[in-house]
Amino acid sequence: MSVKPKPLGPIPQGFSVIDGELAIGGRTASELIASSQHTPLFVYSQDLLRARMDNLRAAMPERIRVNYAIKANSFEPVLSLMNELSDGLDIASGGELDMVKAIGADMANVSFAGPGKRDSELETAIAVGATLNLESEGEARRALDTADKLGKVPRLAIRVNPEFELRGSGMKMGGGAKPFGIDAERVPALAKEIIAAGCEWRGLHIFTGSQALSAEAIAEAQCNVLSLAASLTEKMGAPLPKLNMGGGFGIPYFHGDEPVDIRHMGKQLDEHFSALPDELSGTEFFLELGRYLVGEAGVYLTRILDKKVSHGETYLVTDGGLHHQLAASGNFGTVIRRNYPAAIANRFDAEPSAIATIVGCLCTPLDRLADRAMLPEADVGDLVAIFCAGAYGASASPSAFLGQGPAAEMLV
Amino acid sequence: MSVKPKPLGPIPQGFSVIDGELAIGGRTASELIASSQHTPLFVYSQDLLRARMDNLRAAMPERIRVNYAIKANSFEPVLSLMNELSDGLDIASGGELDMVKAIGADMANVSFAGPGKRDSELETAIAVGATLNLESEGEARRALDTADKLGKVPRLAIRVNPEFELRGSGMKMGGGAKPFGIDAERVPALAKEIIAAGCEWRGLHIFTGSQALSAEAIAEAQCNVLSLAASLTEKMGAPLPKLNMGGGFGIPYFHGDEPVDIRHMGKQLDEHFSALPDELSGTEFFLELGRYLVGEAGVYLTRILDKKVSHGETYLVTDGGLHHQLAASGNFGTVIRRNYPAAIANRFDAEPSAIATIVGCLCTPLDRLADRAMLPEADVGDLVAIFCAGAYGASASPSAFLGQGPAAEMLV
Repeated sequence: MSVKPKPLGPIPQGFSVIDGELAIGGRTASELIASSQHTPLFVYSQDLLRARMDNLRAAMPERIRVNYAIKANSFEPVLSLMNELSDGLDIASGGELDMVKAIGADMANVSFAGPGKRDSELETAIAVGATLNLESEGEARRALDTADKLGKVPRLAIRVNPEFELRGSGMKMGGGAKPFGIDAERVPALAKEIIAAGCEWRGLHIFTGSQALSAEAIAEAQCNVLSLAASLTEKMGAPLPKLNMGGGFGIPYFHGDEPVDIRHMGKQLDEHFSALPDELSGTEFFLELGRYLVGEAGVYLTRILDKKVSHGETYLVTDGGLHHQLAASGNFGTVIRRNYPAAIANRFDAEPSAIATIVGCLCTPLDRLADRAMLPEADVGDLVAIFCAGAYGASASPSAFLGQGPAAEMLV
Repeated sequence: MSVKPKPLGPIPQGFSVIDGELAIGGRTASELIASSQHTPLFVYSQDLLRARMDNLRAAMPERIRVNYAIKANSFEPVLSLMNELSDGLDIASGGELDMVKAIGADMANVSFAGPGKRDSELETAIAVGATLNLESEGEARRALDTADKLGKVPRLAIRVNPEFELRGSGMKMGGGAKPFGIDAERVPALAKEIIAAGCEWRGLHIFTGSQALSAEAIAEAQCNVLSLAASLTEKMGAPLPKLNMGGGFGIPYFHGDEPVDIRHMGKQLDEHFSALPDELSGTEFFLELGRYLVGEAGVYLTRILDKKVSHGETYLVTDGGLHHQLAASGNFGTVIRRNYPAAIANRFDAEPSAIATIVGCLCTPLDRLADRAMLPEADVGDLVAIFCAGAYGASASPSAFLGQGPAAEMLV
């Protein structure tokens, strides 16, 4: 057959081989599956989560704090660890507010963004003292009314829709008409109104895009964020307590992707921070990161149920699929499907020798985990690992599809 | 502004207006929301489900029976009704097997397809007497071993990977290498083996594609299915008890889509059935339909939480989104996003007069329910209806994404 392999994405650093198997946290894939008694299984590595945060902090200017956007992964043990490692938690729904309450997060460090907040969500957030990142003048009015009703002083910040975007980002969150935040030119008037109303003014949230890999592009966007924040602050005529600069740091999913050069970015940011505009001299600066902090620390393990040949092509049929790994299947916001990094977990050091397509167990042609991948010979009972599964995996996939149900999750 | 509207898909027939509002089953959208006490809400219409089945049966040759593929919508009241209206239920997982057991379906009319069946799923299916549509020789062996262990005679059919595909289908399930079924040339040998092993031989399952709108193309594919089934049956040398001919009937989602002309198709099928090959003279014929039976009977209702303007464009921010309506957001197996049919439900008879983009409440630019739609003027508190929400809505969307949780569902 003239079937040509399609490249796999790069396997993240930090995984080891024990007895020929992929090992996470010093335990082999087989051991991890045996202890969970369930496949498919998401395994998240504490060591990798800690190392990622340490490296980031070492590279960034000292003044920058790091928030965790819990939407990336809100599995309770991961969330608790990230609460410990980060300087604050960013949430996007009442459901996520419940999660951060459940782990005992300090509400003074929790902020709530999202374009459609229900009155009940505003009420709970104000009652517990979380900061609301206001997305519109209408939401501001509702928040003020709610605070009045509760007799509470609300903590309010404003999300800005900037004129510029993050070049090369997978999702653009700025530059032109957007449902997020308030167009920059209308921000000073609203800020003045909020401050005049006696709220606790918490500052600005400026998010320009996500999943960018170019340090230059991210640093450029953050330089623009600093300038915009300074100019808005000047117009407001009041100090800016906090600035959420967004994040946008991507991770390499696909063949040819290179990790963000955070040391280079750190140096560029150092320069910007050494020449900080006067308006921002007293401001606390936050990066908001989700995928970058947790994405590469997670692996999805699924067992091969069947091996079959159709028209000369080999299929490895697993007990997992797009109901846990929607993005890896290429069906979530992607135009052209490309392979995530993948491996045969229990033959992790074996030489690739055969081309196989890894599919899920769902009865739909969309359910593809790796297309024509060059892998070690594998058979029924072997374990497939899909990497970069720490973010937007379990929580961003339709787990009830075809009556399948969720995967197990484990922090090791 | 020079913003141009983008067309909406066609609103399905069968909905009415009461007091200016969209009405389903004689109740206005507002009443339905009031009685569910929850938005977003999926509403499914009994009348429309019944009418669809009646019309289909009237158009199809009398010999054709109609199975319901429960993956399209397995909300229990809908499933119970479809069990009553259809001639059998097709399932695709152990979870779906539990659902059809829970409603007391007759297992003699239940068949289980899907490329990755676990041993435990095979065991339950054989124990309760559901038919297994075997997807590979390996699965056949596992099924025989399981039946042996249980001391049961298994009901077995074979899923065939045909050489041809359904022209114009949204998802191709035949023609070339596929993870589904067994390549046609290997089917007779496996069928003989199964029959010789003393199993209850149930026949063939041949599925060529889905979401096709051309009656000609569907009839042509079904003509090919009949020929293939006859030729395989001849090679097996045993009668074919049942033939699941697949389905493939689509529904119009987008501007310019026309419904399948089922009367024309019925006439074409009549011709094929009047000249049926001898091999199939005693065969029972089944269509397997999911989306076609339930898709247009469902409406998704979501409330507008905010109305905002960014750079001259109006956004209606709702309390729903892609976590319930992944396909409508354009993020499930689609390359180019197009608008589903949508309306302002409580102003259903008002003239469209303004362009607005309807987004969900999720903090991601992917969360778009209607892009630049020409709609009646709408504001906070109004209800948005997204049509064609009866299939692959609630169950095929990532309801836990961003901590949101599922929508309510209601059969009226």
